[in-house]
Amino acid sequence: MQPPQDTTTTAADRSPHARASDSGPRRRLANAIRALSMDAVQRANAGHPGAPMGMADIAEVLWNDFLRHNPANPRWFNRDRFILSNGHGAMLLYSVLHLSGYELSMEDIMQFRQLGSKTPGHPEYGYTPGVETTTGPLGQGLANAVGMAIAERTLAAQFNRPGHTLVDHYTYCFLGDGCLMEGVSHEVCSLAGTLRLGKLICVYDDNGISIDGKVDGWFTDDTPLRFEAYGWHVVRDVDGHDAEAVKHAIEEARKVADRPSLICAKTIIGFGAPNVCGTHGVHGAPLGGDEIQATREFLGWEYPPFEIPDDIYRDWDARSRGARWETEWDAVLGDYKRAHPDLAREFERRCRAELPEKWSQHAAEALARANERGAKEATRKSSQAALNAYGPYLPELLGGSADLTGSNNTNWDDCTALTHKDSDGNYIYYGVREFGMSAIINGLALHGGFIPYGGTFLVFSDYARNALRMASIIGAQSIFVLTHDSIGLGEDGPTHQPVEHVASLRLIPNLTVWRPCDSVETIAAWRSAIERRDGPTCLILTRQNVAHQARDAKMLQAIERGGYVLRDATSEPEALIIATGSEVELAVDAAQALTERGRRIRVVSLPSVEIFEAQDAAYRESVLPSRLTARLVLEAGATRLWASYAGPKGKVLGIDRFGESAPANALFQHFGFTVERVVAAVEALLSE
Amino acid sequence: MQPPQDTTTTAADRSPHARASDSGPRRRLANAIRALSMDAVQRANAGHPGAPMGMADIAEVLWNDFLRHNPANPRWFNRDRFILSNGHGAMLLYSVLHLSGYELSMEDIMQFRQLGSKTPGHPEYGYTPGVETTTGPLGQGLANAVGMAIAERTLAAQFNRPGHTLVDHYTYCFLGDGCLMEGVSHEVCSLAGTLRLGKLICVYDDNGISIDGKVDGWFTDDTPLRFEAYGWHVVRDVDGHDAEAVKHAIEEARKVADRPSLICAKTIIGFGAPNVCGTHGVHGAPLGGDEIQATREFLGWEYPPFEIPDDIYRDWDARSRGARWETEWDAVLGDYKRAHPDLAREFERRCRAELPEKWSQHAAEALARANERGAKEATRKSSQAALNAYGPYLPELLGGSADLTGSNNTNWDDCTALTHKDSDGNYIYYGVREFGMSAIINGLALHGGFIPYGGTFLVFSDYARNALRMASIIGAQSIFVLTHDSIGLGEDGPTHQPVEHVASLRLIPNLTVWRPCDSVETIAAWRSAIERRDGPTCLILTRQNVAHQARDAKMLQAIERGGYVLRDATSEPEALIIATGSEVELAVDAAQALTERGRRIRVVSLPSVEIFEAQDAAYRESVLPSRLTARLVLEAGATRLWASYAGPKGKVLGIDRFGESAPANALFQHFGFTVERVVAAVEALLSE
Repeated sequence: MQPPQDTTTTAADRSPHARASDSGPRRRLANAIRALSMDAVQRANAGHPGAPMGMADIAEVLWNDFLRHNPANPRWFNRDRFILSNGHGAMLLYSVLHLSGYELSMEDIMQFRQLGSKTPGHPEYGYTPGVETTTGPLGQGLANAVGMAIAERTLAAQFNRPGHTLVDHYTYCFLGDGCLMEGVSHEVCSLAGTLRLGKLICVYDDNGISIDGKVDGWFTDDTPLRFEAYGWHVVRDVDGHDAEAVKHAIEEARKVADRPSLICAKTIIGFGAPNVCGTHGVHGAPLGGDEIQATREFLGWEYPPFEIPDDIYRDWDARSRGARWETEWDAVLGDYKRAHPDLAREFERRCRAELPEKWSQHAAEALARANERGAKEATRKSSQAALNAYGPYLPELLGGSADLTGSNNTNWDDCTALTHKDSDGNYIYYGVREFGMSAIINGLALHGGFIPYGGTFLVFSDYARNALRMASIIGAQSIFVLTHDSIGLGEDGPTHQPVEHVASLRLIPNLTVWRPCDSVETIAAWRSAIERRDGPTCLILTRQNVAHQARDAKMLQAIERGGYVLRDATSEPEALIIATGSEVELAVDAAQALTERGRRIRVVSLPSVEIFEAQDAAYRESVLPSRLTARLVLEAGATRLWASYAGPKGKVLGIDRFGESAPANALFQHFGFTVERVVAAVEALLSE
Repeated sequence: MQPPQDTTTTAADRSPHARASDSGPRRRLANAIRALSMDAVQRANAGHPGAPMGMADIAEVLWNDFLRHNPANPRWFNRDRFILSNGHGAMLLYSVLHLSGYELSMEDIMQFRQLGSKTPGHPEYGYTPGVETTTGPLGQGLANAVGMAIAERTLAAQFNRPGHTLVDHYTYCFLGDGCLMEGVSHEVCSLAGTLRLGKLICVYDDNGISIDGKVDGWFTDDTPLRFEAYGWHVVRDVDGHDAEAVKHAIEEARKVADRPSLICAKTIIGFGAPNVCGTHGVHGAPLGGDEIQATREFLGWEYPPFEIPDDIYRDWDARSRGARWETEWDAVLGDYKRAHPDLAREFERRCRAELPEKWSQHAAEALARANERGAKEATRKSSQAALNAYGPYLPELLGGSADLTGSNNTNWDDCTALTHKDSDGNYIYYGVREFGMSAIINGLALHGGFIPYGGTFLVFSDYARNALRMASIIGAQSIFVLTHDSIGLGEDGPTHQPVEHVASLRLIPNLTVWRPCDSVETIAAWRSAIERRDGPTCLILTRQNVAHQARDAKMLQAIERGGYVLRDATSEPEALIIATGSEVELAVDAAQALTERGRRIRVVSLPSVEIFEAQDAAYRESVLPSRLTARLVLEAGATRLWASYAGPKGKVLGIDRFGESAPANALFQHFGFTVERVVAAVEALLSE
């Protein structure tokens, strides 16, 4: 079957520009991107030549006329950020990084999509100098860009002083039809409009093609109108192959300071490939030898693959102006240090992602105080107490919630709203936008200067799931506060009761998941999240009250190991109850009842499986001795992940079906989370 | 901390209508909804009075003047569909169902949010007569409504004949600010605009309030403009408390046949509660006794809780007109049967969700042919072959892809595109909208008359995850085709390589997951998905080629049991290799190598864990004998779920980290999926 529309395209359809191979020196610079892209994709025998060839002219203008960056120091703090949200166009980015002088050699380009190379199939943060974030999953690069633009404006508000413009950069983002079709684009662009992020400039690669063909069959939005509805400044009908037009559009966008800008650039996908440009055939497959030859002729590009003439390298080279920009900024920073030494120290600390000097002391004191306080409360309340304890010492905390502030308890006494008027706030009302929030948080974390966090109900981590995965891939310090963590949510019913979610988050590599059992574990979990600079953390919190657990100093210390003996038998234990979160209280109560029956029970609290499993084998064995095979695991959620903890002779008491709408206590009864049932289960294990 | 905006509201702010308690008989009918809602929430001590009280006037007009339904038969096929996308307003729906004569008693209303009641905290499909879908997770009800509107139009195109208008109903949807902030609303409304779904009529409850307070701080979209950008017909500035205005708006919407309509109704949340209406305080908490009393006075509602005067019941009662409508339609159907007996039989078959008479025979033949064909191909290709085998016999199949048709292979030879011009197609180009597609599919399934399916890359099931969960909660026959199922995806790299996804889908209750190993298991998996009328299925398919596995008749038959012995030792086996999908080939090759070394190896193919676990214990034991403790599990994904299959002496060979960008073969080597390593692992198990 063919797609519904006619996909045949004649040369004449492809705008006058498709005919031009002689558009002067700028076109020649852009053609270097085209040649590198088509040749690298061909060599890899896989990849996406269409977008790089289509956006080459735009990229050339942006990088050579506007982008302030320093190829010799990709981490220069005040650089403009550039995000390729249509990440399949990776070769566009690798080409401009290579051409402008980043440490990305022609050999690296030739290794495109090969194991261990610096040029993976999509831009991967940490693999390639100059890549600001990992993109590919559509729409999320745009969301990261929104986060970076928020970060820039907020840092500027916090640190710039009259006569000292320390933080001052643009965030540029390229995006395609796919990004705009994805729902997350709506969430983040709507919020960007509300927040009036004037230094966010996005370029829409309006080429009318997506993988299934011409988009008229499935994407007929009036995109400029849509973005005007969000309060954006829209530059319409820009010819994306006319360097002057692109330059004017970017200038116009930079002039509008009170609204983000969308430049709608009409382009031809695969521009330069005479027989396939303007069709979906050029989107995601190599051009093939013949078409590559035809493209070389069409573009007048006379150089062999992976060879760039010196004059083109020279015109692209951004190293000397990059060094100058950074030097100029160093002077600004130097002046600032003299005028505002304390602020400057704080700025540098935050840029380096260092915690405050006395952090460890504060954290230890906060833990001790929480232990003394011994509150019986919901862990979402304890989480707010943790924010109140840490917040005053951590100006880099930048919180928020997806419209559940009063439920997530993500606000705290001294936090202030970040709005379009007050950009130095530290709390973002994200609206009902879980995915957008989470991907924005990743952008905030990547920008630097902040430890971002945001809240929603645990069940709605589903909506945001790929952003949590992306944080994990990137290694971004994003903190996700996920409350109402089980059937304990109660009356809102199965759609709102997470059952499989804790288990499924634990499956994501490099994601640390905490499910604390009381206020003390909660404050320890927050500390762990704050100290984990190289990856994301989920804090899984209860809606309902949980008891405080008594701990000695050793236990207090052991929380940070992710799992520890919370209560032990007075002599050699005969059975083990492992529990997390709200079920620890039940485990302790059942252990008490069993003790009264003469049983010797150890209770292990296991708030973070990932952290516990990272401990040495001796410690793990000391907590969970192999010889103790009578084991019961308690968690009000999916049981399957716990099989290895229960062992062949143990049992897992959990929930492998959807919940029900009823008061929480009725539900815990209904699903068998009672002292009687736990006691009976342990007795059964012991009588086997 | 307070939200940024001023949340104090005076009575004068709340529009003139807030003052009026004497707006005539229609207001009194609407007040019945208000009273039931506030009293039920109060009694449950939990719930959301704000939306039902705010939308009561609109609901009254829609239900009493427009909605064609039959309270005595909630499954009458040609009824108008009504979806409450802002599902937290459940009491609105329960009130109108009760008042109009559905089998929902006052006792049921009084049991709101109690265990086992017909009135759970959010509308749950299957719990309450008249509830068309489960709503609560915001935006998805709207998506379901789009699916129902597509279903209606397509069924009409397929079955209506000149003079015989058999399928002809509206789909009405209420939604709030939250639905509109969610990204999924963008995806589905954009597509609804492209498809020109003229019989979809949505009413936006524009009350300016979400949970965190007045939405100005986080939601400043010009929503009418946004929807005009999607090509919708928008009725602006309707006073949602003026029955005449609402009536005019709905009439206007019904007149526009070539575009979906959005009625933007200004309302006051919690209308009638004099001291809290218009604030977020009334959104999600009981009003309290004093405010309830004040509301009674304000509204002039003089009846005690849960008492409705007879005249109000009488005016709401839709039973006689409902019976008449259905009788009239029965006459239409009768005429149709006489004029088009074959079509009528087919229509009734599809309405009853019965498979064609010769289905089992076709399916058995297709399985036999696939077995004879013995193709070495990617299972995504086998999936297309299955569609080609089954498609001609299943006109109810309604497929699609989120812009990956050529990759998912979700199209087939005789399918045709469903477009705004050709509404009788059976393939939807969903665009890059994974979540929207999946939630629309749920709506198609709920409407009846179709078996919907849709494809994307497995990794992007993340984007759609909550829709897969909702399909599982609802028990909708939605089929999700998820291709490119492992590092076998190759060069696109970690963002596109699912690692944890198969495991995490298996955690969702009531979701059947198939990961077939070759073309034969793939066609069996499709059969299972098609025959599973009470729940969703995920088909997890490879990008890369896999070998055909030889099977005898018994094995062929056993596939439908989810797991079976694919290859056995000639005498008593000493070790077991369990594998799924693309790793079955590796298991068989390794077993061969081990056999050559004199080992006695059984290979078990386990394409569907859920179905295997639903088999009786004797069968499971026959496949996986307990005494066989030397067990190796092979799956190129997260290992943790397999611990119970490996057992304490076994081992799982999987991938618990993110992938890399490289050709697939290089990756399988890199991650250790080689015959050598499998052989060594089994030898190690046997030497322990």
